Amino acid sequence: MKTIKSKFESFRQKTNVVIYGTNTASGRLFDLILLGIILLSVFIVMLETVKGFDTKYHHELIVLEWIITVFFTLEYILRILSINKPIKYIFSFYGIIDLIAILPMYLSFILAGASVLTVVRAIKLLRLFKILKHPKFSSQSIHLKEALIASRGKILIFIYFMLISSIIIGSIMYVVEGEEGGFTSIPTSIYWTIVTLTTVGYGDISPITPLGQFIASIVMIMGYGVIAVPTGIVTAEFATNSLKKKVSDTTNPCPNCGTEGHVYNAKYCFHCGANLK
Amino acid sequence: MKTIKSKFESFRQKTNVVIYGTNTASGRLFDLILLGIILLSVFIVMLETVKGFDTKYHHELIVLEWIITVFFTLEYILRILSINKPIKYIFSFYGIIDLIAILPMYLSFILAGASVLTVVRAIKLLRLFKILKHPKFSSQSIHLKEALIASRGKILIFIYFMLISSIIIGSIMYVVEGEEGGFTSIPTSIYWTIVTLTTVGYGDISPITPLGQFIASIVMIMGYGVIAVPTGIVTAEFATNSLKKKVSDTTNPCPNCGTEGHVYNAKYCFHCGANLK
Amino acid sequence: MKTIKSKFESFRQKTNVVIYGTNTASGRLFDLILLGIILLSVFIVMLETVKGFDTKYHHELIVLEWIITVFFTLEYILRILSINKPIKYIFSFYGIIDLIAILPMYLSFILAGASVLTVVRAIKLLRLFKILKHPKFSSQSIHLKEALIASRGKILIFIYFMLISSIIIGSIMYVVEGEEGGFTSIPTSIYWTIVTLTTVGYGDISPITPLGQFIASIVMIMGYGVIAVPTGIVTAEFATNSLKKKVSDTTNPCPNCGTEGHVYNAKYCFHCGANLK
Amino acid sequence: MKTIKSKFESFRQKTNVVIYGTNTASGRLFDLILLGIILLSVFIVMLETVKGFDTKYHHELIVLEWIITVFFTLEYILRILSINKPIKYIFSFYGIIDLIAILPMYLSFILAGASVLTVVRAIKLLRLFKILKHPKFSSQSIHLKEALIASRGKILIFIYFMLISSIIIGSIMYVVEGEEGGFTSIPTSIYWTIVTLTTVGYGDISPITPLGQFIASIVMIMGYGVIAVPTGIVTAEFATNSLKKKVSDTTNPCPNCGTEGHVYNAKYCFHCGANLK
Repeated sequence: MKTIKSKFESFRQKTNVVIYGTNTASGRLFDLILLGIILLSVFIVMLETVKGFDTKYHHELIVLEWIITVFFTLEYILRILSINKPIKYIFSFYGIIDLIAILPMYLSFILAGASVLTVVRAIKLLRLFKILKHPKFSSQSIHLKEALIASRGKILIFIYFMLISSIIIGSIMYVVEGEEGGFTSIPTSIYWTIVTLTTVGYGDISPITPLGQFIASIVMIMGYGVIAVPTGIVTAEFATNSLKKKVSDTTNPCPNCGTEGHVYNAKYCFHCGANLK
Repeated sequence: MKTIKSKFESFRQKTNVVIYGTNTASGRLFDLILLGIILLSVFIVMLETVKGFDTKYHHELIVLEWIITVFFTLEYILRILSINKPIKYIFSFYGIIDLIAILPMYLSFILAGASVLTVVRAIKLLRLFKILKHPKFSSQSIHLKEALIASRGKILIFIYFMLISSIIIGSIMYVVEGEEGGFTSIPTSIYWTIVTLTTVGYGDISPITPLGQFIASIVMIMGYGVIAVPTGIVTAEFATNSLKKKVSDTTNPCPNCGTEGHVYNAKYCFHCGANLK
Repeated sequence: MKTIKSKFESFRQKTNVVIYGTNTASGRLFDLILLGIILLSVFIVMLETVKGFDTKYHHELIVLEWIITVFFTLEYILRILSINKPIKYIFSFYGIIDLIAILPMYLSFILAGASVLTVVRAIKLLRLFKILKHPKFSSQSIHLKEALIASRGKILIFIYFMLISSIIIGSIMYVVEGEEGGFTSIPTSIYWTIVTLTTVGYGDISPITPLGQFIASIVMIMGYGVIAVPTGIVTAEFATNSLKKKVSDTTNPCPNCGTEGHVYNAKYCFHCGANLK
Repeated sequence: MKTIKSKFESFRQKTNVVIYGTNTASGRLFDLILLGIILLSVFIVMLETVKGFDTKYHHELIVLEWIITVFFTLEYILRILSINKPIKYIFSFYGIIDLIAILPMYLSFILAGASVLTVVRAIKLLRLFKILKHPKFSSQSIHLKEALIASRGKILIFIYFMLISSIIIGSIMYVVEGEEGGFTSIPTSIYWTIVTLTTVGYGDISPITPLGQFIASIVMIMGYGVIAVPTGIVTAEFATNSLKKKVSDTTNPCPNCGTEGHVYNAKYCFHCGANLK
């Protein structure tokens, strides 16, 4: 009895190293295989929506879907078995994502019909969030995440400014252009304003009256000139942070206390007062 | 008699604190409710222009409009009563906006007809400007306003440059493309040039002759390269201001030798080694 | 005889002050009136191309054209009379522009026909270049001109890079997409590439095959990421120049020799070696 | 016998100087002529695809093609003869490109047919890569290449981020919009997302449902705000590098006290007052 338990314990620890370890060879291999299968899975869901391809290779896609689902099911069971706090994992964000990734295929037995298909497909796409857990992704995105958090306030003001401008300009254009040019309602006009201010410019809605084209021209030029301001603010934020970091990178540490970040012509350490030369 | 006057005075002061106060709990609550009602009001005017929605919920929208109008009317009367200089408020920009916000609904009794509707709707949209008075908005927009004022000169030169370029390029394209490609007049060609230079590119007008496409290509590449210059100027302006501010923020002069430029957590002067604290 | 000559000389000098002077009240007034008439003239040529407007007010526009032409003729004669080196002026760039500005109306007497009209209109539009001579314009554009000249090399490399990329990508898209998607020839494909790389995106030509859309997606993302590089170079150029200038602006002059541009914690003047404190 | 060999050796050396030399007058002339012929060759391949032009001047284009092919053949033979390690050259990247540049015309003797024409044309376009070997090009592109390599990591994260965002947003839009708005499959929706996020905005696919337009608006604003972040990172990278270089360029240490950071025309050390020259 004891041997089985200890055997299971040994198996649990080995599995834990493979699944959760990021510094061991087997852990890295597992992460790589998992990443490949997630991407393959997303690629298959994509191909299923391409009609010409789906009618031709429907059977093959279903088989691949089942193989992936079985793999994800095994991964889910092993994760629960090998982790120390399985309850915490099951109800965590990633635990729910892992469960959702395997549910749709099993549900397709009991439920059927075209209307269910779209929902099932939408749920399947949530598998993409499994990538976020991947160590490669999380380490690479930290820098970007930090940068986004640092300039969060400025981006919010920028978005806020864009929204207020869009409502005002959209309302003016609705009154000026009327329904002939495609400005059928104020929300539609606001949609046009956002499409224009962000310089996307689909052209599905565009002003046709001379006054509308004149106002649109002013909106474009003003927007183009004014939008350089928030962009400049964000860039300046990064440039100064980056510069401060670079300057501190190039200063030699204090020989006494090891403090870094001295200005380039410092004679004494700003922390302990020791002579730097 | 005196009691009524003093009671009214007490009521006036309480109202003043609620309406004009931004640091008291009741003042903040009032500002929040007012913001919510302004946004709701704008949202209703938007929905009224969506035909499918308006025909279905016309009655409910009218009722909501009346509730909002009564609230704004009460706010307007209380503002006049509680302020020390009511005449100044009534004829101020925000006083007129507040009056305009409530007028259209009362005018709809005496005036009627489809042509009036558009005008009434346009006037209603001026309620949006009530947001500008909101403390949240004004405090948040100060930074952006300052930045805009600081780079006003550069944005003006940029706009000026864009306009001159647009007139010259637009005129050339009108001569080259003629009326077949949609370049029916010089103003229309200028509109096309602005749409192109700002990279919006609707595609409602686009060159069809080889020469026109060739000139358009040059305009796009030149514009894309040259426009980086004003954008760079604005960004550089912010970057240097931001950097100077950061540097000066962290600089406290040494009490011994007066050297500046110490890092923010410096204990000893980097020049003479004197204790900074 | 002498009186007439001296009277003419006195008239010549007065006219010179009015026409060429930029610091006298009369000179400034003349510049302002001239600017107004140039803009009016350009505005009229624009309106002449708007069919609805031209048929309605054809007569009025012709009258205005003649008034402007007479004014420009007088200006041209007075410029020749009052300048010291008339021959040099007549054959200078601005002298030729001034002559061209008045010729079309006089030529319309001897020449006639619809085909002449377009040429005449194109010549009339050259009046726009008269603005370049205006002191307001030239002073304002100096900063931009300097910036453009400073980053000329970088803009050229950028344009060069864009062109090579456009030829390569355009050729690939021509082979991939074929004539169905609008990629009828390599020059047309290059036009599409430039429209796409500059993010203008008219949509008159857009890929329809899956492979074409895939390549177009790569082009857009790569282009968007790579194009940040030249933009960054230009911005960085300005930022550092602006920073150097700002730093030197804030340093106090040497009390001995008056040299400026000392670093913020300088003790001795770098030019004469005098003590700065 | 010896004379022929020495004559050939002398010819080989002369040819080597002309073909591979970049500092001699004859070498520079050869490079210039070669560049001109490459550009002419590319221009001819372009013109061949313009139907109206090709039918008119088909014969002339073929003759020019043959002249260019003979020139490139001679160049290829001389390169092999004059280089010291001909085998290494033949199997190098540029050696293969040079061979490919001449093959299609000779192959057109043995092979024929419309389907071959497209392949032949595609191969001919590879001649463009001959430009990359040109000294003018390689020297000019070094700065850009260095900048690209320096910010390679950041551009990769940026592209990676764009791809993940595009897959998620594209999938949401596919579920929301359905096939009516042109969102026929998830890959097509991803294509739309990339077209939108990069602000190209063709308009061949655009949302038509209110919810789709609402999500598209959020995508545009968010994308516009968030994309400023990676652009800011790249710009900041350049700005700091450029600034560091400028600062270090102007810094020569004081021979007396070793202080650095002197302005470029400093005569005396700002710290100890010692003569710097």
